[in-house]
Amino acid sequence: MTTVADILKFVETLAPRAMKMDWDNVGLLCGSRTAPVTKILVALDPFEHVCAEAAEWGAQLIVTHHPMIFRPLSGVTDDTSIGRGLMTLIRNGISAVNAHTNLDQAPGGVNDELARKLALVNVEVVNPCGTTENGEPWGLLRMGQVPEQPLEAFLNRVKTLLSCESLRYVNGGRPVRKVCVGGGSCADGMHEAIAAGCDTFVTADVKYNQFWDARDLGLNLIDAGHFYTENPVVAVLAEKLSAAFPEVEVKISESHRDCMKFF
Amino acid sequence: MTTVADILKFVETLAPRAMKMDWDNVGLLCGSRTAPVTKILVALDPFEHVCAEAAEWGAQLIVTHHPMIFRPLSGVTDDTSIGRGLMTLIRNGISAVNAHTNLDQAPGGVNDELARKLALVNVEVVNPCGTTENGEPWGLLRMGQVPEQPLEAFLNRVKTLLSCESLRYVNGGRPVRKVCVGGGSCADGMHEAIAAGCDTFVTADVKYNQFWDARDLGLNLIDAGHFYTENPVVAVLAEKLSAAFPEVEVKISESHRDCMKFF
Amino acid sequence: MTTVADILKFVETLAPRAMKMDWDNVGLLCGSRTAPVTKILVALDPFEHVCAEAAEWGAQLIVTHHPMIFRPLSGVTDDTSIGRGLMTLIRNGISAVNAHTNLDQAPGGVNDELARKLALVNVEVVNPCGTTENGEPWGLLRMGQVPEQPLEAFLNRVKTLLSCESLRYVNGGRPVRKVCVGGGSCADGMHEAIAAGCDTFVTADVKYNQFWDARDLGLNLIDAGHFYTENPVVAVLAEKLSAAFPEVEVKISESHRDCMKFF
Amino acid sequence: MTTVADILKFVETLAPRAMKMDWDNVGLLCGSRTAPVTKILVALDPFEHVCAEAAEWGAQLIVTHHPMIFRPLSGVTDDTSIGRGLMTLIRNGISAVNAHTNLDQAPGGVNDELARKLALVNVEVVNPCGTTENGEPWGLLRMGQVPEQPLEAFLNRVKTLLSCESLRYVNGGRPVRKVCVGGGSCADGMHEAIAAGCDTFVTADVKYNQFWDARDLGLNLIDAGHFYTENPVVAVLAEKLSAAFPEVEVKISESHRDCMKFF
Amino acid sequence: MTTVADILKFVETLAPRAMKMDWDNVGLLCGSRTAPVTKILVALDPFEHVCAEAAEWGAQLIVTHHPMIFRPLSGVTDDTSIGRGLMTLIRNGISAVNAHTNLDQAPGGVNDELARKLALVNVEVVNPCGTTENGEPWGLLRMGQVPEQPLEAFLNRVKTLLSCESLRYVNGGRPVRKVCVGGGSCADGMHEAIAAGCDTFVTADVKYNQFWDARDLGLNLIDAGHFYTENPVVAVLAEKLSAAFPEVEVKISESHRDCMKFF
Amino acid sequence: MTTVADILKFVETLAPRAMKMDWDNVGLLCGSRTAPVTKILVALDPFEHVCAEAAEWGAQLIVTHHPMIFRPLSGVTDDTSIGRGLMTLIRNGISAVNAHTNLDQAPGGVNDELARKLALVNVEVVNPCGTTENGEPWGLLRMGQVPEQPLEAFLNRVKTLLSCESLRYVNGGRPVRKVCVGGGSCADGMHEAIAAGCDTFVTADVKYNQFWDARDLGLNLIDAGHFYTENPVVAVLAEKLSAAFPEVEVKISESHRDCMKFF
Repeated sequence: MTTVADILKFVETLAPRAMKMDWDNVGLLCGSRTAPVTKILVALDPFEHVCAEAAEWGAQLIVTHHPMIFRPLSGVTDDTSIGRGLMTLIRNGISAVNAHTNLDQAPGGVNDELARKLALVNVEVVNPCGTTENGEPWGLLRMGQVPEQPLEAFLNRVKTLLSCESLRYVNGGRPVRKVCVGGGSCADGMHEAIAAGCDTFVTADVKYNQFWDARDLGLNLIDAGHFYTENPVVAVLAEKLSAAFPEVEVKISESHRDCMKFF
Repeated sequence: MTTVADILKFVETLAPRAMKMDWDNVGLLCGSRTAPVTKILVALDPFEHVCAEAAEWGAQLIVTHHPMIFRPLSGVTDDTSIGRGLMTLIRNGISAVNAHTNLDQAPGGVNDELARKLALVNVEVVNPCGTTENGEPWGLLRMGQVPEQPLEAFLNRVKTLLSCESLRYVNGGRPVRKVCVGGGSCADGMHEAIAAGCDTFVTADVKYNQFWDARDLGLNLIDAGHFYTENPVVAVLAEKLSAAFPEVEVKISESHRDCMKFF
Repeated sequence: MTTVADILKFVETLAPRAMKMDWDNVGLLCGSRTAPVTKILVALDPFEHVCAEAAEWGAQLIVTHHPMIFRPLSGVTDDTSIGRGLMTLIRNGISAVNAHTNLDQAPGGVNDELARKLALVNVEVVNPCGTTENGEPWGLLRMGQVPEQPLEAFLNRVKTLLSCESLRYVNGGRPVRKVCVGGGSCADGMHEAIAAGCDTFVTADVKYNQFWDARDLGLNLIDAGHFYTENPVVAVLAEKLSAAFPEVEVKISESHRDCMKFF
Repeated sequence: MTTVADILKFVETLAPRAMKMDWDNVGLLCGSRTAPVTKILVALDPFEHVCAEAAEWGAQLIVTHHPMIFRPLSGVTDDTSIGRGLMTLIRNGISAVNAHTNLDQAPGGVNDELARKLALVNVEVVNPCGTTENGEPWGLLRMGQVPEQPLEAFLNRVKTLLSCESLRYVNGGRPVRKVCVGGGSCADGMHEAIAAGCDTFVTADVKYNQFWDARDLGLNLIDAGHFYTENPVVAVLAEKLSAAFPEVEVKISESHRDCMKFF
Repeated sequence: MTTVADILKFVETLAPRAMKMDWDNVGLLCGSRTAPVTKILVALDPFEHVCAEAAEWGAQLIVTHHPMIFRPLSGVTDDTSIGRGLMTLIRNGISAVNAHTNLDQAPGGVNDELARKLALVNVEVVNPCGTTENGEPWGLLRMGQVPEQPLEAFLNRVKTLLSCESLRYVNGGRPVRKVCVGGGSCADGMHEAIAAGCDTFVTADVKYNQFWDARDLGLNLIDAGHFYTENPVVAVLAEKLSAAFPEVEVKISESHRDCMKFF
Repeated sequence: MTTVADILKFVETLAPRAMKMDWDNVGLLCGSRTAPVTKILVALDPFEHVCAEAAEWGAQLIVTHHPMIFRPLSGVTDDTSIGRGLMTLIRNGISAVNAHTNLDQAPGGVNDELARKLALVNVEVVNPCGTTENGEPWGLLRMGQVPEQPLEAFLNRVKTLLSCESLRYVNGGRPVRKVCVGGGSCADGMHEAIAAGCDTFVTADVKYNQFWDARDLGLNLIDAGHFYTENPVVAVLAEKLSAAFPEVEVKISESHRDCMKFF
């Protein structure tokens, strides 16, 4: 019978622990590695409503990108959203496994999927941190080419391909040819992107001074949203789990959407 | 003849140094306190193009909210935007004065003006840090009331009153009655806002996890943009300088707009 | 109906949060403050077997001295004893409340009870940290007098009164007249004890060099065991809870004994 | 003529400085390397009474395991036991040499001797830190086998072989087959011991929570006393010094016993 | 009979411990407070040759400004000058008492004596740290007036009055009227001196960049030598000890001179 | 046309950035790398009067040893000497390039030139940090031999060869044969010098306790002044720049002398 340990081992094959950043928390963060698994709910975040959805559906495991526990906890109570989520999981015998920065950095992970979604070609790792056993480089950012086009055309492309409601951006004053991507909060990587010859950078959670820095550096900087730049990996995870464990039912969370809206 | 020292003294009457945060850098950051002043350019930021505008117009002083130098500098060269801005100022004999967190916290400063723009009533300082000589409380955030209204109505009001192109927000599930405001990056103050009984918080530079935290806490959180939430104070500064120094020409920067756009 | 919040409030009347040490973790560390309570299990420690006993007995709350979570947790899994304990509590709807260094320091807490057990008279707080609203001094250590007696007689008394299996001690070369007590690991307080005029110190977890330091300083130092010096407060807690909440069943853990044995 | 420098050199052949831990203080800590030596007193500790014994006997050198100075000194006065010890040495022209963590870790040192005393077989270094020129691994802990036996039988063996007055222990619920040893305060090594396949760990200065941790981990943990687990090396040191310097009189301290007693 | 404790108590009346800087080490740093004293050697430093002089003369105590031990010691051996000094003291039953920054800061201490030597008038403490029970302010630097004179004349005066072999200085471009003094390494106080209205600063151990800073600030900065600016207090100490303890012989070290020469 | 970038590249060939210490600030610290250069002023320090001299002479570049900015700047105003210097440079279109600890450590740099000036023979790097591509060792200190001579003779030689007004020194009690040199504040290297077999050390900015340490260690320690030990490299820099850029006029500052005098 398939157990949490089997799933965990498979997830850590896709996104090895050794690829995570030092400050990160990944792997089995709730539950039991010996628990049998017949249903897995996959989602970007292990938020309270995702835990509730898992319980309602009868899952024994949630697999997410963000960790169930990020800052170590001093209590598990229903005073906090994390506490409520954990209590829902535990009461329903659900374990929680995640791959965070290891999945950002792994070949085929968050950023490779983001590059694929945006139809970049000749995709490479920017400043690789190492090489896998198969000789594939890994690291945080990806870059690739698009047919030369005005920024506006590329903005349209990003919005459509990632299904974003809206984008925030600064015009660096250059047409788009070589694009760097970093799902989530990667705007600090803009200097790396420029040094690698990119004219455009797609990431999220960009702050006021970062937009201005990009403008001063002549970089088109696009904030496509944390959710929209990372969520594409969820489908990849679900497919790979499904393929590897045909006896297990794998479902993508239906309740989890970005809570942030534009007006 | 009016000098930089006179203007500096006046600015530090509006926004006393003692009100600045420990890590901040405010006051005279470039130039000479003995320089005579006949023209002052006022702007939110002392960016390179603002320095150029000041030079073209023939100003001897720029007065801004953000500091010319934030992280101490190891060089002043034209390799960086800050270096180019400083060189423009110095070559044209222009000084730079600013009031940053002291202006955020002062009575009549950034956050009082933001509250006024949003037509809040019964405005109070949230968790005052101290009291001025005139007995006025001062501190970072402000809160006040609006006629009870659905969130959508309030979003419309914010967008119109601050002339924002677009807003980002999360719906906390409550009507709007008591609103907290913090211009710029104040989203960490959301717990203070809730503790003070607010249902809605207007600030900027909000990150993914902060939107989710707000939702979990039942707070309407609105990111109206760093520029749009702080820029209102520029007109206030210009008026007060003009009134205090009738012999000096005071102008608001015409070149400085938010560089970030929505798509 | 009595709730966890009611019990917590009462416990924090006995041992106010303000009396805890900076690094400590006390209060509601697991569960829900709105949960109704009809059965409370009281124990020195919230170890796994105590959680299991609470579940078997049908308690909705455990009240302990040591905290359920001391070092903040990065995961709640059955790989660790703490994780297993928490999962038992949560699956059985049991909350966990504790008072640790606040109970050590409070009037009537761990150290007052230890002094009472040892029949010290004229008991005082050594170096009080403050005074309660009722004017009672509070602080970590207590001291009091016994009729002058040889060390051996006092050792016998300690062993009998605390029901210890055995004691570890060093002979400071003085008869016993004025005794300092500090339940648990308080041996660093020996300099305070001497400065306060004590000839004898009863505490626990004493290390090799601390025994030698005591000998050099002419202090009789007695290690009566962490469990035996702190456990007396458990009966006090149980009684006070019972008296305050007559409608609630209060029981002292039957499974919790010191796991350490002498041979 | 044999000098302090000759003895020091020999001691640092047995226990090379490079094997000490970073925070440790070893070697010549008092006196003069050119002083001639005809009498050496060897002891576990350089306590005040050992210094006095050395002076009375007419020794020119004490060789100990623990350092004469551990925390660097701000004064050498007779207000403290260390000051009195140092003054006794200096007034009597006695030098002090020690080997502490270097002797714990060296082949043939504290922990090899403890393993030998307990008749462990197939003794190995647990997680070696390096290898000597002769290819011998070195490191802190040792492990070895005993004929399978119930814990009680092994407790009896430890008590007899180390001449302990009494032992403190927790029963991990397993028979004794593979034993890890670490003289002095090594209980933090219990995770290493378990990872190396040991069922039983003999060390000292064990604290309350460490006994419970061992129980949770199913490890038999025995506190045989700091003195009794380290003192066996004293005879080894004395013999080796005697053999290497036949012209020098070497004596083991007669006054030094453990000051801690059981009652 | 006069003891070390009596002398220590008197020294700490002249220079209370509470006036020392946090990082300093003062008081009884070697020997025994119960030792009887008939001869005291007083010197600026407790260097090896001063210890030897004390031993030869038969003193039981040295009283110095600089501490016998500054950085805490990990050993007391004849490998180091401090070790040799301590061993000389201990072998000869000599104690060591000192008053360092407490004597710098005390009324009547190092800096008051330096001001007196230089015939400053209207002497005040620069930025007092506190006030003694007698209402006298205390603190590090002193300042006072001299009849207005060219720098050269004042240099001549300093050289003569302090018996310096030579001076190092920078000309700040101003006549000498108000002089700040700080014996030893006080050049960092130059900003305080200027803020207090001084034109001239006498101190020691001045570095290259400090001379340039002084020149830029228009301050005459004179390095009169660490020894020559602090040694005057030695005679004061000797006199006060002699007057307070007429039964004790007090002598100023004859062997201690500055070891640094000019060429 | 020769640009600042060309000069910078050449300077960093002489003194590679990789040879600088971690805390140092070197390279282009003011101005523009694209500025054309026809006149270079070379000096030890980029002080205010050197900047003024460069402006008067019409230079487009100053090349110095010490950095224009050492502690990062929070402002560029005429309140400070550094601010005034920077403003003079920028207003006159002058860039500033420097090589500091990289020039100290480079072959042919500050310390090789000091050794050459003092006519040391068989000059070697003390404790080299690395080797250049040409196989030359590099590092901070240099040492070499002189014909055996009394200290006084050597002092005379140093004073004459470096054109010092006066020297400060301590006599270590040995004739001079093997000399270590470290321009500027290198007295902490005295232990390295002794370990390398030197009897004499020439450096600057020596403090009181360092003279005494040298005396205790039997080392002749000579403070020849920060300016006089480092300034020789200025002529070397000027010559090399002149030879490499014959089309550029290179001049050594005429206004820069040591501001410190002896009296």
